[in-house]
Amino acid sequence: MQFEKSDRGTKYAELLQAFMDEEIYPAEPVYAQQMRDSGDPHFYPPVLDELKKEAKARGLWNLFSPHPETGPGLTNLEYAPLAEIMGRSLHLAPEATNCGAPDTGNMEVLTLFGTDEHKEKWLRPLLDGEIRSAFAMTEPAVASSDATNIQMRMERDGDDYILNGRKWWTSNALHRNCKVLIVMGKTDPSAESYRQQSMMVVPIDTPGVTIVRSLPIFGYQDREGHAEVLFENVRVPATALLANEGDGFLISQSRLGPGRIHHCMRSIGAAERALDLMIDRAKSRSTFGAPLADRANIQDWIAESRVEIEMVRLLTMKAAWLMDTVGNKHARVEIAAIKVAAPSMALKVIDRAIQVHGGGGLSDDFPLAEMFAQQRTLRFADGPDEVHKRVIARQEMRRRDKANA
Amino acid sequence: MQFEKSDRGTKYAELLQAFMDEEIYPAEPVYAQQMRDSGDPHFYPPVLDELKKEAKARGLWNLFSPHPETGPGLTNLEYAPLAEIMGRSLHLAPEATNCGAPDTGNMEVLTLFGTDEHKEKWLRPLLDGEIRSAFAMTEPAVASSDATNIQMRMERDGDDYILNGRKWWTSNALHRNCKVLIVMGKTDPSAESYRQQSMMVVPIDTPGVTIVRSLPIFGYQDREGHAEVLFENVRVPATALLANEGDGFLISQSRLGPGRIHHCMRSIGAAERALDLMIDRAKSRSTFGAPLADRANIQDWIAESRVEIEMVRLLTMKAAWLMDTVGNKHARVEIAAIKVAAPSMALKVIDRAIQVHGGGGLSDDFPLAEMFAQQRTLRFADGPDEVHKRVIARQEMRRRDKANA
Amino acid sequence: MQFEKSDRGTKYAELLQAFMDEEIYPAEPVYAQQMRDSGDPHFYPPVLDELKKEAKARGLWNLFSPHPETGPGLTNLEYAPLAEIMGRSLHLAPEATNCGAPDTGNMEVLTLFGTDEHKEKWLRPLLDGEIRSAFAMTEPAVASSDATNIQMRMERDGDDYILNGRKWWTSNALHRNCKVLIVMGKTDPSAESYRQQSMMVVPIDTPGVTIVRSLPIFGYQDREGHAEVLFENVRVPATALLANEGDGFLISQSRLGPGRIHHCMRSIGAAERALDLMIDRAKSRSTFGAPLADRANIQDWIAESRVEIEMVRLLTMKAAWLMDTVGNKHARVEIAAIKVAAPSMALKVIDRAIQVHGGGGLSDDFPLAEMFAQQRTLRFADGPDEVHKRVIARQEMRRRDKANA
Amino acid sequence: MQFEKSDRGTKYAELLQAFMDEEIYPAEPVYAQQMRDSGDPHFYPPVLDELKKEAKARGLWNLFSPHPETGPGLTNLEYAPLAEIMGRSLHLAPEATNCGAPDTGNMEVLTLFGTDEHKEKWLRPLLDGEIRSAFAMTEPAVASSDATNIQMRMERDGDDYILNGRKWWTSNALHRNCKVLIVMGKTDPSAESYRQQSMMVVPIDTPGVTIVRSLPIFGYQDREGHAEVLFENVRVPATALLANEGDGFLISQSRLGPGRIHHCMRSIGAAERALDLMIDRAKSRSTFGAPLADRANIQDWIAESRVEIEMVRLLTMKAAWLMDTVGNKHARVEIAAIKVAAPSMALKVIDRAIQVHGGGGLSDDFPLAEMFAQQRTLRFADGPDEVHKRVIARQEMRRRDKANA
Repeated sequence: MQFEKSDRGTKYAELLQAFMDEEIYPAEPVYAQQMRDSGDPHFYPPVLDELKKEAKARGLWNLFSPHPETGPGLTNLEYAPLAEIMGRSLHLAPEATNCGAPDTGNMEVLTLFGTDEHKEKWLRPLLDGEIRSAFAMTEPAVASSDATNIQMRMERDGDDYILNGRKWWTSNALHRNCKVLIVMGKTDPSAESYRQQSMMVVPIDTPGVTIVRSLPIFGYQDREGHAEVLFENVRVPATALLANEGDGFLISQSRLGPGRIHHCMRSIGAAERALDLMIDRAKSRSTFGAPLADRANIQDWIAESRVEIEMVRLLTMKAAWLMDTVGNKHARVEIAAIKVAAPSMALKVIDRAIQVHGGGGLSDDFPLAEMFAQQRTLRFADGPDEVHKRVIARQEMRRRDKANA
Repeated sequence: MQFEKSDRGTKYAELLQAFMDEEIYPAEPVYAQQMRDSGDPHFYPPVLDELKKEAKARGLWNLFSPHPETGPGLTNLEYAPLAEIMGRSLHLAPEATNCGAPDTGNMEVLTLFGTDEHKEKWLRPLLDGEIRSAFAMTEPAVASSDATNIQMRMERDGDDYILNGRKWWTSNALHRNCKVLIVMGKTDPSAESYRQQSMMVVPIDTPGVTIVRSLPIFGYQDREGHAEVLFENVRVPATALLANEGDGFLISQSRLGPGRIHHCMRSIGAAERALDLMIDRAKSRSTFGAPLADRANIQDWIAESRVEIEMVRLLTMKAAWLMDTVGNKHARVEIAAIKVAAPSMALKVIDRAIQVHGGGGLSDDFPLAEMFAQQRTLRFADGPDEVHKRVIARQEMRRRDKANA
Repeated sequence: MQFEKSDRGTKYAELLQAFMDEEIYPAEPVYAQQMRDSGDPHFYPPVLDELKKEAKARGLWNLFSPHPETGPGLTNLEYAPLAEIMGRSLHLAPEATNCGAPDTGNMEVLTLFGTDEHKEKWLRPLLDGEIRSAFAMTEPAVASSDATNIQMRMERDGDDYILNGRKWWTSNALHRNCKVLIVMGKTDPSAESYRQQSMMVVPIDTPGVTIVRSLPIFGYQDREGHAEVLFENVRVPATALLANEGDGFLISQSRLGPGRIHHCMRSIGAAERALDLMIDRAKSRSTFGAPLADRANIQDWIAESRVEIEMVRLLTMKAAWLMDTVGNKHARVEIAAIKVAAPSMALKVIDRAIQVHGGGGLSDDFPLAEMFAQQRTLRFADGPDEVHKRVIARQEMRRRDKANA
Repeated sequence: MQFEKSDRGTKYAELLQAFMDEEIYPAEPVYAQQMRDSGDPHFYPPVLDELKKEAKARGLWNLFSPHPETGPGLTNLEYAPLAEIMGRSLHLAPEATNCGAPDTGNMEVLTLFGTDEHKEKWLRPLLDGEIRSAFAMTEPAVASSDATNIQMRMERDGDDYILNGRKWWTSNALHRNCKVLIVMGKTDPSAESYRQQSMMVVPIDTPGVTIVRSLPIFGYQDREGHAEVLFENVRVPATALLANEGDGFLISQSRLGPGRIHHCMRSIGAAERALDLMIDRAKSRSTFGAPLADRANIQDWIAESRVEIEMVRLLTMKAAWLMDTVGNKHARVEIAAIKVAAPSMALKVIDRAIQVHGGGGLSDDFPLAEMFAQQRTLRFADGPDEVHKRVIARQEMRRRDKANA
C-alpha cells in the first residue's frame, strides 16, 4: 500500500486549497444570500458561474476524470484528497470544479459506453460544464437495491424504444442546466436476472418525460433537486442505448467504484468541518464556570471524532489505491466497506457537533443540520448499508471456505 | 408504584383514541393539503378550528391541566397515556385538545403565579384556546442551560420595567394566534446566582418587541415557529412581574416537571408510530427473494425498538406517579432521567424506520424525517442531555456519600 | 399495572435486607477465605450451612416458591425485589435462602409435574436444602436454542428407558450436594417438532452417568460447576418420566418465566452493586488534580448506569406483574424482553465500573470481573439474545397483521 | 504515507507465516497439555524452548528490535504485520521469537539508556532469550496513569539508593526465567512534576523485594503473572540508575510508542482469529432450519468486524510509518489513537464471536474468552482509554487555536 501523495497530487491539493480559501469560503455567504433572495430553492445563483470560470482559469476542472484528455487525469488516490477538500463546502466546491455527482458518473459512463453521437451531444457540454445531467434508476414502488426489482419497461418498437415507468431520487433533474437523463430499465424481463436491464440516454425534454415533483430531504429542497420522474410512452431512437441490450447492470456497477470514493471523501471533508465547528463552539461557550471544551465528555467526543475520521480516511485511501492498482473488481470489499463506514462516521461526528451547538446546531445559522441531512441520504444512495454488509459477509465466508478447503 | 389506569384514565384514553381514529387521522391529509395550498409555513389551517370544536364537544379539552376548574383535572399518571396517544399525530392532536407546548406550561405558570389581571387577560383565553403564547428564555449569545448566563436585562424604571435583550427558540411566537410572551431575564445581576432572574408577562405587540425571524429545524419551518425575538427598550408595567423579583429561576423549575412528562410521552407515541411504519414497510418490500421482514437484522431492529420503547414508557410512568405522590422535587432524578432517555430512544427507533423505508423515509411521503427533526430538538429543549446527566450523577454521588457516612 | 409493594413484600424486603447487612456481607470475606484455603473450586464452605440455618430461622427460606405450603408463597412481583437484593451477593445470598438456580426451576417442575415418588425422594430434600440438583438440556454438538436439535436419545426398553447422549453447561452438577439431574432428551424423534422431547428425573449416581469435566467461564471455575455430562446406556425406570412422553418442550417452557424474573432481578442487583463500587472508586481516585468523580465523562457513565438500571428494573417488574395477573403465556414478549435487556445492561454497567477501577477491576480484589463473567453467560442461558429478539419481532409483526387486517 | 511491504518485510512475513503453520499452531495443543499436566499456572512448558530454538534457526529472533546488531533491524512498519501474525497465537508466538512484552520495551530501554554493566549483565541474556524481565510502574494505591501520583520512594544513601513502595501489575515477574525488574519511582518528590521520577534496574532477587502474589484477570492466572511486588528497604547501588535522576518520565515515554504498535497489531491478529472462528462456527451450526451464517444479523456482525479490523489496521500502520519517518513525538496523536481504537475493536469482534459460539465461547474449548480477557487489560495498560482521549482532544484544540489565531 502506498498512500504517499505524488508531486502532482500535492500540487493539485495546494491549488485547490488556495481556491477554497480565496474563492469558495468567501463565496459561501454570497451564495446563501443569492439563494435567499431568489426565493426559489432550485435557483441557479450567478456566483456559481463566476466560481466555475475561476476554477477553470486555475486549472481546477474535471479533476475527477481519470482520462488525460478531459482533465489532469488523476488517479483515484490522487483525486481522493481533493474530494475531501471539496466536501468541506458541498454546495459550491464540487460544482465549481465540475466534479459534482451524478455528472461525474454520467460523464464516465458516456466516455466508456457512449456512441460518438452521445459524446458529441452530451459528453462534451458536460465536460465543459455547460449542461448538467441526472441518473434515473431508483423507483418508488420497489426496493431498488435489488436490480431485478426494477419495473421500468423499455420496449423495442421498430427503430425506437418506448419507455414506461416511474423513477424517483433522480438527483440533479431540477438543476436549471439539466438537459439529459441516463435511465435504467428493463429491455428483457425474461432474461437472466442481471441481463434484463439496459441503460439509455434520454434528453430531459423528450415528450412523455414529466418531472412530477422534487423530493425534500428532511425539510430541505436541495438546489439540484431529487426528482420523481414519470415516463409515459417516451419514445427514443434505438441509438439511445448505451452499449448493448442487457448491459445495464454491468454499466451501473462500473460507475459505482469511483463514485463511492468521491462520496466518502466528501463525507470525510464534511466531518472535518463539523469537528472544527464542534471544537470552536466548545471553546467559546461556558456553563457552570467552565468552557465546554474543559469537560471530559466533550473532550471524549472530540477525540473519538478524530480517531473515527482518520480511520475512515485511511480505509477510503486504501480503496482508491486498490482501484488504481488492481481494479474496481478486486477492490469490491473495500468499496462496500467505505460505503458502510463513511456516512455513519460522518453522521456521528456531525451529531456530536450539533449537540455542542445547542439549538443553533439544528438551524441554518450553522451548516451542521444540512450536513447531517446530506450524509443521511448516503446510507441509502447506491443501496442501503445492509446490502453492502451482505456483500462483505459473503466475501468473508468465501474466504474461509477456501482456507478450510 | 401503581401504574394501573384509573376508571377516569381508561375513559379518557378510550375517548381520545376514538377522537384520533374518527377525527385526527382522517384530518392529517386535509391538514397537509391546506398547509401546502397556503404556501405559508406559518399558516393556521381551518381544519384545526374544526378539530378543536370537536374535541371540546367530546370533553377532550385541557386534558393536561391538573386543576379541576379548567379541565378534567387528571393526575400526571392519568394524563401520561393521553400524551402518548397525542404524540402519534404531533401536528394536530396536541393543539386540537388545547394540550400543546409551550402553552400548557405557560397556563400552569399563570395559574400558579399570575395576578388576577394576568388570569383575566391571558389565562382565560389560553384555556379557551382563543389565543396562544410563547416562552422566551433561551438566548443566542450564551449557553442558556446555565441560568446564570442569561443576559436579558429587566431594569426597574419607576412603575415600569424596561427589557433589553435577544432571545431565540421562542417556540410558538409565529403562531398566528400568539398574543403573549412569558419572558425570563435578570432584574438583579448582582444577586446570588439563582435569585438574579425574574419572569414577566409581555404582550407580543408591546413596542420594542421584534420577531426577527423564524429558525428552521433541519430545513423545516415549524408552523408555530421558533422565533428569534429582539427586545429593545421594551417598557412593561411592574405588574407584568410573575411572583416576585428573583423568583424567575424557581418558576422555571416548577414548569419543567409536567412539561417533561408530556414531551416524553409524546416522544413515545412518535416512536410507536415509527415502529408501526417500520414493520409495515418491512413486510411490503422484498429484496433478493424475501421480504425485509424475514431478515434477522430487521427483526432485531423491531425487537430492540419494542424493548426500548417499553422501558422508556415505564420510566416515564414512574416519574409521573412520583410527581403525583411525592411531588416534583422528589421526582427530580426521574424527571432528568426521562429527559435523557426518551428523545434518544425515539431517535433510534425513527432512524431504523427511516432506514427500512429507503429514500422515501427522508422525504415528506412519510412522517419519519419530520419526526426525527422534532425529536432531535428535545435533546436540547429544557437543557441538553449532558446537563441532566450531571444532575443524576450528582444525586447518585450524594446517595453514596450518605451510605458511606 | 401495579408495582406497589404489598405489606408482605415490604416485610420480606426488610427482613432480607437485615439478613444481608447482618449476615451475608460480613460472611463474604469468610467465604472467600474458606474457598481459598480449600484449594478446591468446588468446595462447599461451612459458612454456607451457618447462613442457611440462620436464613431458615429468620423465615427467609424458599422465598421464590409461589406455593404457600413450601414457603411464604410470594407472587412474582413480591419476590422480584428480593431476588434483586440477593443479586448483590451472588455467591451467598441465593443459596443461603434456598433460592438458587437451577434448583428453583427444578423444584417448580417437580411440584407441577413430579410423581409422588419424585416429590418424596427429591422435592422434599430440595425444599429442605439438604440436596441440590442440576438441569441437563444443552448439548455440545448442536445449537440447543432450537429444541428440535436435541440429540440425546431416551429409548423405551421394557419398563425402563435407556438414555444416551452428551450434555454440557449442566450447572450445579459439581455442587457437593448435587444428587439428581432433570434431563431433556428425545423419546420420539419422528414425532412433530415440539412433541419429540421428554424430561426425566435421573439420580446423579445412576450407572452410565459420567461427569466428564467442569467448564470454566472465562478463567473461573464456578463452585457449583458447569458440567459436561456423558450418558452411556443409562437405564432409568419408566417412572423417571415427568408428565408424559412428548411433554418435554412444554415443561421446559413452564420453568422459563419465573426463572427469567429471578435471573434478571439478580442481574439488576449485581448492576447496582457495580454502580456503587464505580461511584466510590471515582470519588477516591484522582488524576491531574481532580477526583475522577469530578470528570464529566465519568459522571455520564454514572448517570447512564442509573437510568439504564431503573428502566430494566421497571420492565422486569412489569413482566412479573403480568405473570401474576395474566399468566406466563401472555407475558411472553415481556419475558423475552427482559432476557435481552437485563444482562446487556448489567454488562455495560459492570464494564464501566471495571474501567473506573483500572487493573484492579479485572482482578479478584473486587467482585467486578467475576460479576461480568456471570452476566456474560446470561446472554446465552435459556437461549441467546437473538432467539428472544426473534420471538419479540414475530409477535410485533402479528400485532401489525391484526391491526392492518 | 507508504504502507507497501518492503522486500525484507515480505520475506519475514513469509518466514513467520511458515513458522506459524509448521510449528506454532501444531504446538498449541502440546502447550495446553503441558500446562494442564503441570497443574501450575506459572509453569514454563518445555515446548517453548523447542519453539525458541526453531525460531532462532529460522532467523525469526528479536524481530522487534530496530537495531541491526541485535536482529534483522526492521522498521516499525516492517515489524507491524509480523506482530499481527504473532497475535494470532499469543501464548506462543511472541515468546518463541523473543518478541514478548514487556521484555521488548525493557530491552529497548536498556539499549538506549543502560550502562555497559546493564548491557552485559541483563541486555545480552535478554536478547539471547536466556532470561526474562519485568517492568514495575503501576501502584495499587493511586491512579498511576498520572505519573505524578507515583509513591515509590528512591532515596539516595551514600553510594546506594534505598527503594520503598508497592507495585502491582508487574507483568512477567512470575515468569520462571524472570531475573530483573525495571522500576519507576521518585528520587525527588519536590522537583517539578515530570522530573521527580527515576528508573532503576533491580535484580529480582535483591533483598527486600517480595513477590506478594499474582493477580488474576477474569479468573485467569497468566503464565507470566501480573505481580504485586513489595519493596522494603531495597538497597541498590547508584549504578542501578538508568540515565539520570529525574529522567524516569522521559524514559517511560520513549518505550511507549513501539510498544503500542506491537500491542495493537497483536490485538488485530487476535481479532482476525476471532473473526475466523466466528465465521466457521456460524457456518457449522443451524437453528430453525438454516445455518447461522445465513442470517442477516450474523452477516452484519461478520461484515462490521471486517470493516472495523481493517480500519484499525490501517491506523496502526500509519502510526508505525509516522514513527519511522518523523519520530515518536510527532506520531503522538496516532499512538494515542491506536491505543483507544485497537483493544475496543478487538473486544467487540471477540464478543460477537463468543455470542455465535454460545456457551462454548466462554469456556476453554475455544480461545475466545481468554482473548477477551487479555484484550480487556489493554484498555488500561499504559493508561486508560480516557487518558489517551484527553491527549488527542488537547492536541485537536491546539490545532484549532493555531488555525483561528
